[in-house]
Amino acid sequence: MNRQFPEHSTLPKGTPTVAVVGAGQLARMMQPAAVHLGIQLRVLANDAVECAVAVVPDVIFGSADDVQVLRELCADAIALTVEHEHVSSDLLDELNASIPVHPSGSALGFARDKAALRVKLTQLGMPQPRWSVVADVQAANEFAAEAGWPIVLKPSRGGYDGRGVFIIRDEQQLAEVMGEPLRADAVWVAEEFVPFAREVAMQVVRSPQGQAVAYPLVRTLQREGMCAEVVAPCPESSEALNEQAAEIVLTLARDLDVVGALAVEMYVVDGEVGEALLINEIAMRPHNSGHWTIEGAITSQFENHLRAVLDLPLGDPSPRQPYAVMVNIIGGDADNLHYALLHCQARDPQAKIHIYGKAVRPGRKIGHVTVLGANVEELLERARHAAAYLRGDIDE
Amino acid sequence: MNRQFPEHSTLPKGTPTVAVVGAGQLARMMQPAAVHLGIQLRVLANDAVECAVAVVPDVIFGSADDVQVLRELCADAIALTVEHEHVSSDLLDELNASIPVHPSGSALGFARDKAALRVKLTQLGMPQPRWSVVADVQAANEFAAEAGWPIVLKPSRGGYDGRGVFIIRDEQQLAEVMGEPLRADAVWVAEEFVPFAREVAMQVVRSPQGQAVAYPLVRTLQREGMCAEVVAPCPESSEALNEQAAEIVLTLARDLDVVGALAVEMYVVDGEVGEALLINEIAMRPHNSGHWTIEGAITSQFENHLRAVLDLPLGDPSPRQPYAVMVNIIGGDADNLHYALLHCQARDPQAKIHIYGKAVRPGRKIGHVTVLGANVEELLERARHAAAYLRGDIDE
Repeated sequence: MNRQFPEHSTLPKGTPTVAVVGAGQLARMMQPAAVHLGIQLRVLANDAVECAVAVVPDVIFGSADDVQVLRELCADAIALTVEHEHVSSDLLDELNASIPVHPSGSALGFARDKAALRVKLTQLGMPQPRWSVVADVQAANEFAAEAGWPIVLKPSRGGYDGRGVFIIRDEQQLAEVMGEPLRADAVWVAEEFVPFAREVAMQVVRSPQGQAVAYPLVRTLQREGMCAEVVAPCPESSEALNEQAAEIVLTLARDLDVVGALAVEMYVVDGEVGEALLINEIAMRPHNSGHWTIEGAITSQFENHLRAVLDLPLGDPSPRQPYAVMVNIIGGDADNLHYALLHCQARDPQAKIHIYGKAVRPGRKIGHVTVLGANVEELLERARHAAAYLRGDIDE
Repeated sequence: MNRQFPEHSTLPKGTPTVAVVGAGQLARMMQPAAVHLGIQLRVLANDAVECAVAVVPDVIFGSADDVQVLRELCADAIALTVEHEHVSSDLLDELNASIPVHPSGSALGFARDKAALRVKLTQLGMPQPRWSVVADVQAANEFAAEAGWPIVLKPSRGGYDGRGVFIIRDEQQLAEVMGEPLRADAVWVAEEFVPFAREVAMQVVRSPQGQAVAYPLVRTLQREGMCAEVVAPCPESSEALNEQAAEIVLTLARDLDVVGALAVEMYVVDGEVGEALLINEIAMRPHNSGHWTIEGAITSQFENHLRAVLDLPLGDPSPRQPYAVMVNIIGGDADNLHYALLHCQARDPQAKIHIYGKAVRPGRKIGHVTVLGANVEELLERARHAAAYLRGDIDE
């Protein structure tokens, strides 16, 4: 544990400090919003290579499992928030005695544990795929016999970006996957495989006073389990579906008592009376499906998250342009990045290319590109071109 | 001298560092752009209370007059730039042997020395008020006899935000002002008092390769010598005047060999054939009259300045909305700031209120507010209300 904030830095009276568990790209992208709002961030990093460390002066090094580290993180801060779910709810509840913790430990538990979420959604009567906690291969087999093959199988905890989500086609594959040891605190969750028409997501940000703002419903494209592309708003969605989504997400934010950003990923399926939504996963923090809001909305998800965490009034989430398209930049050839950037910036002076300052490794998210305008197909072409060029997939 | 960047921070290969002389609000506002571009800033601060110190991890403490300090600032950086003019051109030229310095020492000389600028503008045939370097009261008197009272009198160096600009109405006042000692490196510059119709400004950003982008001509309102309000674009300007301004500013950027941001403040006067422009002052850095570009333009002046300094292709300077209005927030009652912010954010969820993290002192610029839309009068009302409330001038 090692704190590196300069002793000689003198903050003016009244400057609020927000403590953040985590120092990855989500904490990094909170920093521009914080700078403009006059807010200080203090981030908790495991390691100096985490990309927020390079842009936030006030860093605590240590583990999010260590209550002493967390206490130091919170010292003289106004509020504590997170950029990931991997922190114990009990620790957060303990800290909450001395500092507002947003989201709370109990709320965050639903983002960390997929089984707990499914139970809660069932209690709330929220639309979701058929699901079951399955203790063993036999139980999973029984679930599949009812729900039909394939089924989706995931450990309740520990996965992210699609890691740990398995599409299981038969009993043999089931036995293989379930033969791997589970974390001690996890169980297997089986879900029906949803033949979705498309995937969508919605962000909402909620303040301690219960003020909430909902961003437009967006279309997401997952690739290898990772969010690859976002179109905001979702061009195919009817007004009725948008309203249904807002109802689901705002209700969920209230019923889970979320403070800060909540992202809800959903499937669109053909229902009995038109299209319907089923909740896939949730995240209780700024989320990849909301990165388009940095330029695309009047108030970004990062700014509204910080405003909510500090109990400030929330900003307008309305889009600035008819459409925003965001495409993730995945690591390719590291040596090429600078020249690729020259090409992409010269080719498209309106593209907003975000580089996270992470070491480039094949398959790793290292940035994203956002373009705004009226023509979705043209925006997709431009954003995909930049992302492909930066990855090194194309060279013209 | 004391460098505080964490030794344990490990930047990925290829991450460019831009060294910045100065650590005030302009350096601070470069940080959000740098974070999104994947650029590291290293700032030179005199003092830990300077407001960029709180948001940029890599800080060198020391004087911009000390070549050793400047060398440390430049170590392993890709380029050097400035957020103020108070650094010696000779030192910059010396550093330029080992690192690109943008703007160059010779270019920056014209922003630092008002007499040098007037001489150069005369050589270039640029439109400007009648002017003369005046060695003593007698010379100033002779100038006033020709140009007519009142005259404008300023030391060639050292003033900013209107400090050191005197409107002189008669000989007695002249004797009083010129009785004060001048800095050793300064001379008195007398200028005719221009009966302007309005004041305007234009930003241009130019890259080392000579690519240049011009932002719209904006209307500025000065109060007590400080930029108080900006309307972008200037609602009263004809297309012909906008073109004339762009011609002046782009030509000036080229002829002064500016790399990075150049702001040109101009008077609009009634000329023989319609309205004409006269150059008042220039700044070779992001400028208060361009703060509206943070949200109001596709690429902000801060982002384009960094792109130019790194010799990256420039981004589109086009406005996002028909009009942007920016009003500076001037310090009032410090204890009130938090509650005032609550009021203003709740009243206007679309307003972008920027707080610089500076200690609040009466009369000091501590932030600005920007609103975008189609109706200038409504935007002015909203932005002025927020600024007045934050200053404590109004309480409803």
